[in-house]
Amino acid sequence: MYIQDAWYAAALSGEVKREPFARSILNEKVVMYRTSTEQVVALEDRCAHRQVPLSRGRLVGDELQCWYHGLRYDCSGACVSIPSQNTIPINARVRAFPVVEKHGLIWLWPGDPAKADEASIPNHWVCAAPELAGKMSYCTIDCNYLFGIDNILDISHAAFVHQKTLGSLDIVETPPEILIGENEVRVRRYMRREKTPPLYTRILQMEYIDRSQEVLYWPIGNTRVETRAHACGDEDGKVYHVYTTTIFTPATDTTSHVFVGMHRDFDVDNHMFTEFTAKEVFNTVMEDKDVAESLQANWDPKAPMIDIQLDRPAYAARRILERMGAIAAIRATV
Amino acid sequence: MYIQDAWYAAALSGEVKREPFARSILNEKVVMYRTSTEQVVALEDRCAHRQVPLSRGRLVGDELQCWYHGLRYDCSGACVSIPSQNTIPINARVRAFPVVEKHGLIWLWPGDPAKADEASIPNHWVCAAPELAGKMSYCTIDCNYLFGIDNILDISHAAFVHQKTLGSLDIVETPPEILIGENEVRVRRYMRREKTPPLYTRILQMEYIDRSQEVLYWPIGNTRVETRAHACGDEDGKVYHVYTTTIFTPATDTTSHVFVGMHRDFDVDNHMFTEFTAKEVFNTVMEDKDVAESLQANWDPKAPMIDIQLDRPAYAARRILERMGAIAAIRATV
Amino acid sequence: MYIQDAWYAAALSGEVKREPFARSILNEKVVMYRTSTEQVVALEDRCAHRQVPLSRGRLVGDELQCWYHGLRYDCSGACVSIPSQNTIPINARVRAFPVVEKHGLIWLWPGDPAKADEASIPNHWVCAAPELAGKMSYCTIDCNYLFGIDNILDISHAAFVHQKTLGSLDIVETPPEILIGENEVRVRRYMRREKTPPLYTRILQMEYIDRSQEVLYWPIGNTRVETRAHACGDEDGKVYHVYTTTIFTPATDTTSHVFVGMHRDFDVDNHMFTEFTAKEVFNTVMEDKDVAESLQANWDPKAPMIDIQLDRPAYAARRILERMGAIAAIRATV
Repeated sequence: MYIQDAWYAAALSGEVKREPFARSILNEKVVMYRTSTEQVVALEDRCAHRQVPLSRGRLVGDELQCWYHGLRYDCSGACVSIPSQNTIPINARVRAFPVVEKHGLIWLWPGDPAKADEASIPNHWVCAAPELAGKMSYCTIDCNYLFGIDNILDISHAAFVHQKTLGSLDIVETPPEILIGENEVRVRRYMRREKTPPLYTRILQMEYIDRSQEVLYWPIGNTRVETRAHACGDEDGKVYHVYTTTIFTPATDTTSHVFVGMHRDFDVDNHMFTEFTAKEVFNTVMEDKDVAESLQANWDPKAPMIDIQLDRPAYAARRILERMGAIAAIRATV
Repeated sequence: MYIQDAWYAAALSGEVKREPFARSILNEKVVMYRTSTEQVVALEDRCAHRQVPLSRGRLVGDELQCWYHGLRYDCSGACVSIPSQNTIPINARVRAFPVVEKHGLIWLWPGDPAKADEASIPNHWVCAAPELAGKMSYCTIDCNYLFGIDNILDISHAAFVHQKTLGSLDIVETPPEILIGENEVRVRRYMRREKTPPLYTRILQMEYIDRSQEVLYWPIGNTRVETRAHACGDEDGKVYHVYTTTIFTPATDTTSHVFVGMHRDFDVDNHMFTEFTAKEVFNTVMEDKDVAESLQANWDPKAPMIDIQLDRPAYAARRILERMGAIAAIRATV
Repeated sequence: MYIQDAWYAAALSGEVKREPFARSILNEKVVMYRTSTEQVVALEDRCAHRQVPLSRGRLVGDELQCWYHGLRYDCSGACVSIPSQNTIPINARVRAFPVVEKHGLIWLWPGDPAKADEASIPNHWVCAAPELAGKMSYCTIDCNYLFGIDNILDISHAAFVHQKTLGSLDIVETPPEILIGENEVRVRRYMRREKTPPLYTRILQMEYIDRSQEVLYWPIGNTRVETRAHACGDEDGKVYHVYTTTIFTPATDTTSHVFVGMHRDFDVDNHMFTEFTAKEVFNTVMEDKDVAESLQANWDPKAPMIDIQLDRPAYAARRILERMGAIAAIRATV
């Protein structure tokens, strides 16, 4: 029961080149490639003839040629050549998915192409803002995408899962302000004289900081954590902005694609620093991957569960998805 | 819904020795061994007592002794000894399968032994002809055996899958003559001044050849490709015969045994050349294995499919199997 | 249909320390640890909040803290701390299992705690007797625990499976005396002038021995083989006692925990000899593991089976389990 009529992050811009690239999106096998004019094409990854994955084929000009019998498909998914015959059956085609490249990501629309409106592409301006420096990475996590969203929306886990990276007990002890919109959830905290978390120590080089943090979620799987930090008490001094983007796309029911990046508005020309922060934030995602996969492996839908106060943002997100029809009715106790 | 009353290639002669040898045939676990007089025996690979695989046991004379409690079975599958007691239960036996060794292969009959007629063993004379040189190999392919037969009967895939070995665009461009018999399918092509495919270049050492090729299929999983080649235009000159045998036996519904060999009528005493051609043809089978396993892994029985003209021989083969009751009714568009 | 109200060996004493230790018992995920006073605690290995395995968490004093959001549980399974809030939901708890440490083993009661009577813990005095020397080991076997019990109760398999270790054809040829009690099965053999089995040769250093052997089984998965050996004919001379303990605990339906040890009443201060015998008996268990896993992998519940005379003790054990409600009705022919 995935929402089909929505844009999903399918790949980093840099992942799709002039050769076939395979990825499962919402249980669909998809092959992507770039045309000679750098346009991204996304087709069903299954030849209309005998189901061989087209991603094992090769590009001939802007057409994708099947590895097995050489059938060629154009960018619309229509079969345009069958080597051994002159006629082409009317139904010789594979599905073509609307795709748009924006903010350094390839966005794919699995649903009705007529409804694909580019204006509704999730706004990840942070990932492409000229005034910011940062870098996106990709990984998979073997869990349902909802567990990924839960993870970001209850940032208090940082105190335990990310002890060595983002860990800060102050986060757990600071009650959040929760803003629930029609189509988004925001979780705000303001921490004064916080012991700087290990990762931020390495980035900001201050032992204690004042920090405000806002976690933003919007459908289907978009999240951004915005951090504003400054030297303790120095409210008029330099403010450091750090944006952590994490986007979840369902691959299958128990595996997810994760696109993650950290962007900042200071020291923006320092490329080594950009590489360093990208690596650090990727390491924290590896910690999340560990806990999320361990949760998925242990998951028993019949086991009783309790809710805690900090689950409220995650439930707010699920209620948005429930209204969209993406998940079944929620019973929450907080 | 496999045809039980038929002969299936179960092993190469050289694979079965004076020790138990396990192989699954049509989802049945079978153990084979040779008696002291070199006769091949094939029994159910599951002790009648506690189901331990007999293939983990050992031969005592011509009897197979179970690894666990030492029960011994004779060549008819009857239990003839239980170490700890003098009486033997009447139903203490495992199934014995009719087996015949012919043309360098062990043929097994999974069905009613009373119907096993040696005269109906598929005629792979090529594999044992004294005037030919060649060698058989064995491999498994993780796909249904029907995909293997499809592969051989549409040899046009050579232009794409076997670009570096058998590849020849001429094959795709030469319309085949298709001869459909009651119990066989033949696909013939005659190519003049063909750019010699890489594998044949290495064998025949000519850049261009005139070549006729006939692909022969007969049930259940027997195929042979007969090639006659000669120097371009030199129809009265030396003719080179090359026979490529490929036999498919279902192991399970998604795995198959493949017996493959290349035999020739020239340079027959050159053993190094025999080894070389055996290795080359095995390499092409590895290319087929790659495409067939990729197809099987991608297979969705509900996905729509189109047919192409070159599928006609494969459909003819499937109609033979359909008439035999081996597969369900076929709906083909070519 | 496992018996819940019973004591099961869950771990060797030495396996459970001041850190979480995970093990599945009767399809339940369990985490064990020791308190600061060395008491063993066993809890459900699934946080009541979001199902993350508690075994991935850490001890804070005698409380177990979840890895994800820091919830803490006391030894009774009650959640006693949720870092981000002051109240704790009434149902915030995980199951706690009665556990008792006895005879060098941790015994766990998966059923109703009110019925857990320490007096009913299986009496493995051999494993803790001061006058004996020996050592327990642990391994898993990928088979149902019943196949493990079968294996011990038909010791005749030693002649085939353990040819290189315990193997003795005399065992097969010596008819056993079978004593079937309400709640135990005993299988006795007395062998005069037996060719000393390889393992015993290494232990006793005699080529031939007189030996009595009694195999004892009692529910759920307890077995002990008691061997009395002396020099041939020397009935008044020195008697060597060797006890081989093997305890099976279901992990899942097709995997079992096995606790195994060999204890003796001679040369008891020789620690190297103790290590040596522990290693030897572990090697024989590896042989049993091989045959039992091979049986489980080959197992087809619909395949016909015969019984042999030596199956009587195993059926007697199964009848005890049948009366307890642990297994379905048995149809045996011996």
